[in-house]
Amino acid sequence: MAALKLKDIPKRIVKDPLMIYSGIKGMFHQTKDRVGLPPGQAIYTGTYHDEPYNISYFQYSDHHLDEHKNQQLDDVKKLAHADDFVWINFQGIHHAEQVRELCEAFNIHSLTIEDILSVEQRPKIEETENYVFVVCKMLLHNSKTRKNSSEQVSLILGENFVISFQEIEGDTFDPVRERLRAGKGRIRKEGSDYLLYALLDTIVDHYFVILEKIGDVLEDIEGEIMLKGKKDSFDRLYALRREMIHIRRSVWPLREVVSKMERDDMKLIKKNTRIYIRDVYDHTIQAIDSVETYRDFISSLGDLYQSVISNRMNAVMKTLTIISVIFIPLTFVAGVYGMNFDYIPELKWDYGYAYFWGLIVSLLTGTLVLFRVKNWL
Amino acid sequence: MAALKLKDIPKRIVKDPLMIYSGIKGMFHQTKDRVGLPPGQAIYTGTYHDEPYNISYFQYSDHHLDEHKNQQLDDVKKLAHADDFVWINFQGIHHAEQVRELCEAFNIHSLTIEDILSVEQRPKIEETENYVFVVCKMLLHNSKTRKNSSEQVSLILGENFVISFQEIEGDTFDPVRERLRAGKGRIRKEGSDYLLYALLDTIVDHYFVILEKIGDVLEDIEGEIMLKGKKDSFDRLYALRREMIHIRRSVWPLREVVSKMERDDMKLIKKNTRIYIRDVYDHTIQAIDSVETYRDFISSLGDLYQSVISNRMNAVMKTLTIISVIFIPLTFVAGVYGMNFDYIPELKWDYGYAYFWGLIVSLLTGTLVLFRVKNWL
Amino acid sequence: MAALKLKDIPKRIVKDPLMIYSGIKGMFHQTKDRVGLPPGQAIYTGTYHDEPYNISYFQYSDHHLDEHKNQQLDDVKKLAHADDFVWINFQGIHHAEQVRELCEAFNIHSLTIEDILSVEQRPKIEETENYVFVVCKMLLHNSKTRKNSSEQVSLILGENFVISFQEIEGDTFDPVRERLRAGKGRIRKEGSDYLLYALLDTIVDHYFVILEKIGDVLEDIEGEIMLKGKKDSFDRLYALRREMIHIRRSVWPLREVVSKMERDDMKLIKKNTRIYIRDVYDHTIQAIDSVETYRDFISSLGDLYQSVISNRMNAVMKTLTIISVIFIPLTFVAGVYGMNFDYIPELKWDYGYAYFWGLIVSLLTGTLVLFRVKNWL
Amino acid sequence: MAALKLKDIPKRIVKDPLMIYSGIKGMFHQTKDRVGLPPGQAIYTGTYHDEPYNISYFQYSDHHLDEHKNQQLDDVKKLAHADDFVWINFQGIHHAEQVRELCEAFNIHSLTIEDILSVEQRPKIEETENYVFVVCKMLLHNSKTRKNSSEQVSLILGENFVISFQEIEGDTFDPVRERLRAGKGRIRKEGSDYLLYALLDTIVDHYFVILEKIGDVLEDIEGEIMLKGKKDSFDRLYALRREMIHIRRSVWPLREVVSKMERDDMKLIKKNTRIYIRDVYDHTIQAIDSVETYRDFISSLGDLYQSVISNRMNAVMKTLTIISVIFIPLTFVAGVYGMNFDYIPELKWDYGYAYFWGLIVSLLTGTLVLFRVKNWL
Amino acid sequence: MAALKLKDIPKRIVKDPLMIYSGIKGMFHQTKDRVGLPPGQAIYTGTYHDEPYNISYFQYSDHHLDEHKNQQLDDVKKLAHADDFVWINFQGIHHAEQVRELCEAFNIHSLTIEDILSVEQRPKIEETENYVFVVCKMLLHNSKTRKNSSEQVSLILGENFVISFQEIEGDTFDPVRERLRAGKGRIRKEGSDYLLYALLDTIVDHYFVILEKIGDVLEDIEGEIMLKGKKDSFDRLYALRREMIHIRRSVWPLREVVSKMERDDMKLIKKNTRIYIRDVYDHTIQAIDSVETYRDFISSLGDLYQSVISNRMNAVMKTLTIISVIFIPLTFVAGVYGMNFDYIPELKWDYGYAYFWGLIVSLLTGTLVLFRVKNWL
Repeated sequence: MAALKLKDIPKRIVKDPLMIYSGIKGMFHQTKDRVGLPPGQAIYTGTYHDEPYNISYFQYSDHHLDEHKNQQLDDVKKLAHADDFVWINFQGIHHAEQVRELCEAFNIHSLTIEDILSVEQRPKIEETENYVFVVCKMLLHNSKTRKNSSEQVSLILGENFVISFQEIEGDTFDPVRERLRAGKGRIRKEGSDYLLYALLDTIVDHYFVILEKIGDVLEDIEGEIMLKGKKDSFDRLYALRREMIHIRRSVWPLREVVSKMERDDMKLIKKNTRIYIRDVYDHTIQAIDSVETYRDFISSLGDLYQSVISNRMNAVMKTLTIISVIFIPLTFVAGVYGMNFDYIPELKWDYGYAYFWGLIVSLLTGTLVLFRVKNWL
Repeated sequence: MAALKLKDIPKRIVKDPLMIYSGIKGMFHQTKDRVGLPPGQAIYTGTYHDEPYNISYFQYSDHHLDEHKNQQLDDVKKLAHADDFVWINFQGIHHAEQVRELCEAFNIHSLTIEDILSVEQRPKIEETENYVFVVCKMLLHNSKTRKNSSEQVSLILGENFVISFQEIEGDTFDPVRERLRAGKGRIRKEGSDYLLYALLDTIVDHYFVILEKIGDVLEDIEGEIMLKGKKDSFDRLYALRREMIHIRRSVWPLREVVSKMERDDMKLIKKNTRIYIRDVYDHTIQAIDSVETYRDFISSLGDLYQSVISNRMNAVMKTLTIISVIFIPLTFVAGVYGMNFDYIPELKWDYGYAYFWGLIVSLLTGTLVLFRVKNWL
Repeated sequence: MAALKLKDIPKRIVKDPLMIYSGIKGMFHQTKDRVGLPPGQAIYTGTYHDEPYNISYFQYSDHHLDEHKNQQLDDVKKLAHADDFVWINFQGIHHAEQVRELCEAFNIHSLTIEDILSVEQRPKIEETENYVFVVCKMLLHNSKTRKNSSEQVSLILGENFVISFQEIEGDTFDPVRERLRAGKGRIRKEGSDYLLYALLDTIVDHYFVILEKIGDVLEDIEGEIMLKGKKDSFDRLYALRREMIHIRRSVWPLREVVSKMERDDMKLIKKNTRIYIRDVYDHTIQAIDSVETYRDFISSLGDLYQSVISNRMNAVMKTLTIISVIFIPLTFVAGVYGMNFDYIPELKWDYGYAYFWGLIVSLLTGTLVLFRVKNWL
Repeated sequence: MAALKLKDIPKRIVKDPLMIYSGIKGMFHQTKDRVGLPPGQAIYTGTYHDEPYNISYFQYSDHHLDEHKNQQLDDVKKLAHADDFVWINFQGIHHAEQVRELCEAFNIHSLTIEDILSVEQRPKIEETENYVFVVCKMLLHNSKTRKNSSEQVSLILGENFVISFQEIEGDTFDPVRERLRAGKGRIRKEGSDYLLYALLDTIVDHYFVILEKIGDVLEDIEGEIMLKGKKDSFDRLYALRREMIHIRRSVWPLREVVSKMERDDMKLIKKNTRIYIRDVYDHTIQAIDSVETYRDFISSLGDLYQSVISNRMNAVMKTLTIISVIFIPLTFVAGVYGMNFDYIPELKWDYGYAYFWGLIVSLLTGTLVLFRVKNWL
Repeated sequence: MAALKLKDIPKRIVKDPLMIYSGIKGMFHQTKDRVGLPPGQAIYTGTYHDEPYNISYFQYSDHHLDEHKNQQLDDVKKLAHADDFVWINFQGIHHAEQVRELCEAFNIHSLTIEDILSVEQRPKIEETENYVFVVCKMLLHNSKTRKNSSEQVSLILGENFVISFQEIEGDTFDPVRERLRAGKGRIRKEGSDYLLYALLDTIVDHYFVILEKIGDVLEDIEGEIMLKGKKDSFDRLYALRREMIHIRRSVWPLREVVSKMERDDMKLIKKNTRIYIRDVYDHTIQAIDSVETYRDFISSLGDLYQSVISNRMNAVMKTLTIISVIFIPLTFVAGVYGMNFDYIPELKWDYGYAYFWGLIVSLLTGTLVLFRVKNWL
């Protein structure tokens, strides 16, 4: 059986501005190649792209800021011994070998490297002796191309560095970059744990951008169902339901991640920063709340749709059947007077034909009155 | 696709006296402008109104009471150093700058200010070193205009002050104002934590006013469904379901808020006051209980509606079909005697026509007896 | 829209011997008049009756027993200083002022008084310094009038007294009164905590009386659905579902109440008595278990009903449609030979008419055979 | 309305080999007679049988075994002072007085006696100073009569005795009796707590016998639905669902019972025995797992049934409607040429009749082609 | 009633590459023969195969490796006293006697042996004084035969040995064997607890292979439903649902098993190994997450299917009914002019027949316009 082709999907569903979701299969295509390998193998499990990797970094302290783009791996590896704060962003993790090299320079455990490259991880946090490792999903709305994307982002927080790993170009981090460049506020003063917070904050805030767009579609569908009960409304609802399954899997585990950052006594996260992380936690709870509310809505709308459709169909069937029933006795009467019996007295009457139409009208009236009494009209 | 216009919604649903809910989108329109901003930015996220802000305050002790309306911001800021108890009510929080100024005079943390202005907060409580911050939803039934509204209210409890922030004119606090003016009972003796309790108490009590009105509508719909099974009953049920999602999101988190006030050892809440907060807690639990019961009812009614509609439709279809079936054989007989064969003996009979009607009557009787036996009539 | 009138409800539902439930609205009509009042206001929130209040009491010790009915309030207030054990029963709590006076004589906190008069309380238990306060729902089957009723009962346990508050005449306490009079067993020896247990025990035991009656109705409906699939079976099921919501709200919170009495180290409940309270706890669990089982049954029966109805309707529609289909081709054939073409050879045949009937019979047989083959008959 | 008579229930359901369940009412017929009685009254709440009671016992130690059947109550009462281990089995607990006598000889608390006689207890365990009391449900498949039964079994474990109470003849204990007689293995060496374990073990193991039989029926129904979609499949599913409610109520609470025996530090249960009780616990968990899995299956099958039925009905309706629609235009054409207009040119044509049949065939072909194109055939 | 035969099942369902599930009955066929036996009886409860057993083992240390296949039981029993690490794999556990012998040589408790042979165990872990016992389900995709199988695997971890028990030839352990032979990495250095981890890891990793294949089928069904709504899509969904019940029962309890290995302070599991077990734990959580997501999808797809089918059926019925209704009045008109009244003026008109057709066309147009207005076309 041939696979489902994109062109086969009803068009309006494709046009919905929220298609993050890339098929059921896409959600889980991963471990097959890795089964039984020794732990800690650096194997990329996502879709392959042809693009080169791209490393950029910020080296900063309260007083100064160096921004570097498109750096050589070897130069970046030296940053492991820098005294300032460093934020390295590695884009294009399908270059598994380079990821491994960079990580080893920063003393990252091989199991962590494996996790960075397995792009279907459930969001989680792990603390080791010298770093904290966070995996989460970044949902991105690109306002230029008006497309959405979803990818896994890994963040490593060390004593004085943060390394972020991602696959696709474009992320939610630009506002943080701006604030680093501007150098105002706390961001350059507070150290790498505050930077980690700032990055997570943009990721969680972006969930609301996506959720708002889904809310728009949901409201659109609500109107559609209430007023017109279009046939593909349910397909669109199904697509939304699918999206929500996807987003839910991203958001729920994040709660535990952020909660651990706030509660557990992590050496690398300063007390000052916790109040901000508490703020991210609140936002995560709110995102979860919205996701659950949307699911509630989608289920309510599904019921409403069924009710609208069945009411509409019933109305059609009822009226049509009524018309049929009215004419059936009339046709019988016409049939009677089309019979060829030698002697049918009515046929000979002077006003036979008028009598016939009188009969028809009486029958018609009677039936209509009956319908009205039985409340069917 | 054009957005759903209010005029398109079936009229009776609009007339329901409980439309607090302002559309799915309205529930979540918020963080888009704030994504990536440094924390603690004073940005208002709600709908804008043109009205000016309005600050009023009560300065009171056991012995005296000063009530001031429409005050200047600068005068109010001086109250931060008052010795008496102070309750400041700030209405019109879309004036973000003024909110910030007032808060700063009272030493409120910038993250708290951000929360006051984000009007889609989940109800929560936060304790800092010198104040307790409570966010909750106020559901208000205006008995004059007979309209309902829902808005976020923020309450800050300090050593000897309470500040309340809201957006829309009109609130549930009037009885508290009356009691302050009357000066009877505990309210002027017990300090600011008791005042906070009294304010929360009116908010929670008002939930029951709203719930009662919803109960009226629900009972109305129940009667409608049981007796008439109207077509738009399900639409009204859906509207109620939507309301309940909204109210549920307001009430459930409040439980945790009040529970924390009662259990945690908050410096600013005196032991005496806890017994009253326990009372608010009981009311909150009861409100939650009612909300869940309503949801149960709505779901039961949905099932009942489906059953009524399907029973009704079945009855219509059955009767109509029966009529059709009765006439079909009769029409066939009439058709037979309308045939033009040279020799059809019945046509020549003297009582042919009478015989025909005899046949018809027999067929009719037979069919009816059969239906009766099969229990279809 | 006019409210649902009792006469409109299908008769058989009204006849069900279990209508405790008094409408959705009745469940929640309460706090409107109380919004914003200072705490502890003695306001009755239930339905008003015209009857006078009625105070009776038992004063007893191991050795003697005084029973008094229809007492004056002032006499009863003196009992606060009695040395013997005292059980005061106050019936008619809509006399709010008298309730307040009595309570104040026994040193009851004003918040407790408010709770006694708010007749839509969720069952709860509260311990203060000198008494234990229990609120619960009494479901009563009056075996004479064969009617059921539901009301709130408040019980106050002091050092050597129990006060019970109720609104309606008639209660489940008669067996306790009998045992007090008889003076056998533990009841007069064990003090007021044992009396409290005995009262609670009768309340919980009565739940089973009601549940049994509901079980009878449920079994009745089960038979009705399996055998006849009557149209109003679903209405009756809905009424039961409504009842269960009501009873469930009474029973579930009671679990926590009794559990607290058993586990918490309440000063006023002696260790000896705990084993009996454990017994009440077991009964409460069993009542909850039954309620949940009933809900399971009701939901199963709902599904069964849908299946029965849809199977029945399908059978009707199928048979009727089959009849229609059989006759449609026959009518066509008759129509053909009623045509007036100059030359239709069959019409001239000697055995034309016989041939026609032969054709009809063949068609009929063919259709029936086809139906049989396709397994539609 | 008359009660449901057994003969009215569809026959195949009755034939199902698993009818343990004895009607909704049977589940709860109990406490009515006991309401308000002082605690500890010895009143039997089950169905009455006419049979006499039957006491048998084993008196054993490592070295010897005495088995006695049909003993006098007075003889058995003396065993309370025996030095060996004793297992007394009391069958026929509707002889409440004898149960009470026996229990009192062994110093059993009156509340426990009440529990033994209340045959609708939820499974539970209670530890007192000198014995452990266990109530559970025994589901029994009698392999001779091929019938199932369900009854309450109470087990009392004392220092050196076990007493088991049951109502109906026949139990799951025969293998234990055999092992006692054989005297091999641990059973005669390990004391009364091991015996209690052995008895419980047979009870739990028998759950699987019953579950297996239900599994057979379920698989049978699955085949029935997938292949034939018989009308009474849903009735059978409903009967199973009812059974599962019954069994579930027996098994779930047992988990807590056995878990308490394993975890709590019960004086009378030796450490050695705990590893075996752990084994029973595992079996109980597995039984619960199976029950939940069956419920899942039953719900899946219910959905499948609905889908099969609706697909089948749709197929019937579709084909029949198609036939109707084909003939309707044809009948119209025949009607046209049966009209008596003075001048209808086709009627005069030489090949008029042939033309008519040509028209009919064209119409027929056209309709069929249209159906084929629209994919309705 | 005859049992369901494989050939009766719709063909496409059988072809699905994922039929692990072997019938409801197969899930639970077990304890019947064991009821009431003393604990620890070595009785195999699975399906019997005729094949001989097959014991192979690896004896290894950091420096060397001996691999032996098809060993004699007696030789293997000697390994209990080996100094090196040993991994024994016993395949063919229906040879219960041999399993018992081997276990006794390694000092395994008889209850454990019983568990090894009861092949319908719920996954669990048990720690005794000198070994850790793990039971879990192995889901295997054989890439050569392209068939799936499911079987119970028991693993025993001793001080310096691991014994694995399984029934069917073929397992997920080959990569571990390869790594042992290669001797690279940690596997030969880290001791038997690391080997246990490696074996568990392959089992859990294989779950994803199976889940991926199910994901393929699910996606296939999704396309099928969205585009064609085939009749057997629901059957396939049901088959998947059945599979998921099976897999879910395997995966959920595993979470607890692995969690215990990580958290409890097990003597035999070194601290070093825990970080790897944490990794297996993460994978298990992810597998559970996928299973739950699939269940969500299956339920969404079920709803979508119902909606598609009902929309399609509605469309068919609607169009067909419309055609019927159009012709019914036309047929009536034709009937009228086929009547034999002496005087029907239209029949005598010169353009009577043309007038008739004009009437027909007007009626037709009118009806179509009406349908268009009412939005039914």
